[in-house]
Amino acid sequence: MSDLTKTIRRPVLKISANRHAWEEDEIVTEYPLTIFLNDEEFATIVCTPANLEEMTIGFLAAEGAIKSCAEIKQLSIDEAQGLAYVDLHRKTMIQQSFYSKRRITSCCGKSRQSFYFFSDARTAKPVQTTITVTAEQCMRLMEKLQSSSEIHRLTGGVHNAALCTPDEIVLLYSDIGRHNALDKIYGECLRKNLATSDKILVFSGRISSEVLLKAAKIGAGIILSKSAPTELALNLAEELNITAVGFIRGGKMNVYTHPERIQLD
Amino acid sequence: MSDLTKTIRRPVLKISANRHAWEEDEIVTEYPLTIFLNDEEFATIVCTPANLEEMTIGFLAAEGAIKSCAEIKQLSIDEAQGLAYVDLHRKTMIQQSFYSKRRITSCCGKSRQSFYFFSDARTAKPVQTTITVTAEQCMRLMEKLQSSSEIHRLTGGVHNAALCTPDEIVLLYSDIGRHNALDKIYGECLRKNLATSDKILVFSGRISSEVLLKAAKIGAGIILSKSAPTELALNLAEELNITAVGFIRGGKMNVYTHPERIQLD
Repeated sequence: MSDLTKTIRRPVLKISANRHAWEEDEIVTEYPLTIFLNDEEFATIVCTPANLEEMTIGFLAAEGAIKSCAEIKQLSIDEAQGLAYVDLHRKTMIQQSFYSKRRITSCCGKSRQSFYFFSDARTAKPVQTTITVTAEQCMRLMEKLQSSSEIHRLTGGVHNAALCTPDEIVLLYSDIGRHNALDKIYGECLRKNLATSDKILVFSGRISSEVLLKAAKIGAGIILSKSAPTELALNLAEELNITAVGFIRGGKMNVYTHPERIQLD
Repeated sequence: MSDLTKTIRRPVLKISANRHAWEEDEIVTEYPLTIFLNDEEFATIVCTPANLEEMTIGFLAAEGAIKSCAEIKQLSIDEAQGLAYVDLHRKTMIQQSFYSKRRITSCCGKSRQSFYFFSDARTAKPVQTTITVTAEQCMRLMEKLQSSSEIHRLTGGVHNAALCTPDEIVLLYSDIGRHNALDKIYGECLRKNLATSDKILVFSGRISSEVLLKAAKIGAGIILSKSAPTELALNLAEELNITAVGFIRGGKMNVYTHPERIQLD
């Protein structure tokens, strides 16, 4: 059986109306698997480290690289290195242009702890900020995010992302793609040269490492999410000086990193 | 202002415990935007068609292609064709290998109606099935999906996907990536040569065109989701003979396509 862990326990500052306390909580891990097809790098998938063979086969079939398992001569997984090697009986050149690429990232870290995305290591820097916010303001911003998006109200089919002061939404974008909603904020900040270090990013989606890195690039010192974070995102948040808050719903919230910016009432 | 529509009205069969009726509902659209950077194709992003300039700038910055808007000489968007042209002052070769690629797809359709993903047009065929299921079974399968995933219960940070008979879960996978969860199902079906046309795909995430195409490749004739569909996914579901059911929660559900497979109690 695999030694890879799908979850890890971390201390979390749990806040509700009447109380706040540090408790241990279970957080999902993120694991990058790079697939080599006939000795050529094909794709890197960030995933939950379980059922990696099934995922590799399914991914190759979904991408049109294979039609059945009979085409696979050999499949081996190096769990420690995060590598999958697939050899096909057919050794013809893979016409990459035919495939929709889902090359999410390349990984240049050696240990899970210092894992970084290559292109991001060059651009993400620790956020400089003195912003603070109260727990109540966090909850109110999340309510505003969800109620301010007309398209979300109409369809329930989009993610929302907003750049906010502790009390007001400054920019709000909705998109079927959660990354697109964040890119729209980032683009508008660049275009209008908006100050971001005194702002809060409020997001309807989960805080994955990619989302956290985008928050760092945007330059926001606090990210608020309605949903769960991943372990890798929290490690990056620690390093990049970002306060990550998740599960803001029903009058509760979890503070995962840099809690010094959250004022308790 | 833009003529692009972010939502579209469609008839939906709404089912709850006491009644069922066809009603009009608002569905989000999907829009592919292909970005050309210095006359070279850089990426295609499937998005909500609004704020395309912001998204293009933010995407390029997030990918490390630019650091500020001052680097952009010209940016123009051809909304009708779904093309963004970005010229940088710097004309040096873009070292594609430095960027994490998010080239989601190439589009070869001319009209929005017949839009297809290129690699998928070769592999997705209409599903052949005689399966039927009752509305009550649909709701029970969705409950089973959410309660059967240990990692979901622990962390709330994963998507769940299951291949089911009308009464039982056959395969269940959880992953931080919704596509990965579906790929794990697809891979296991191929590996074990499982029959899929008499099965139902039950999914915690939204039904986007990519998810729908994956259901078609897996060969399941019914897809059940806790969440919303996109318009493009529903057009594909019509063509590929798949029953798409969304918003299965709180004793209600919406049937969007091929309702003949859903038995009303």
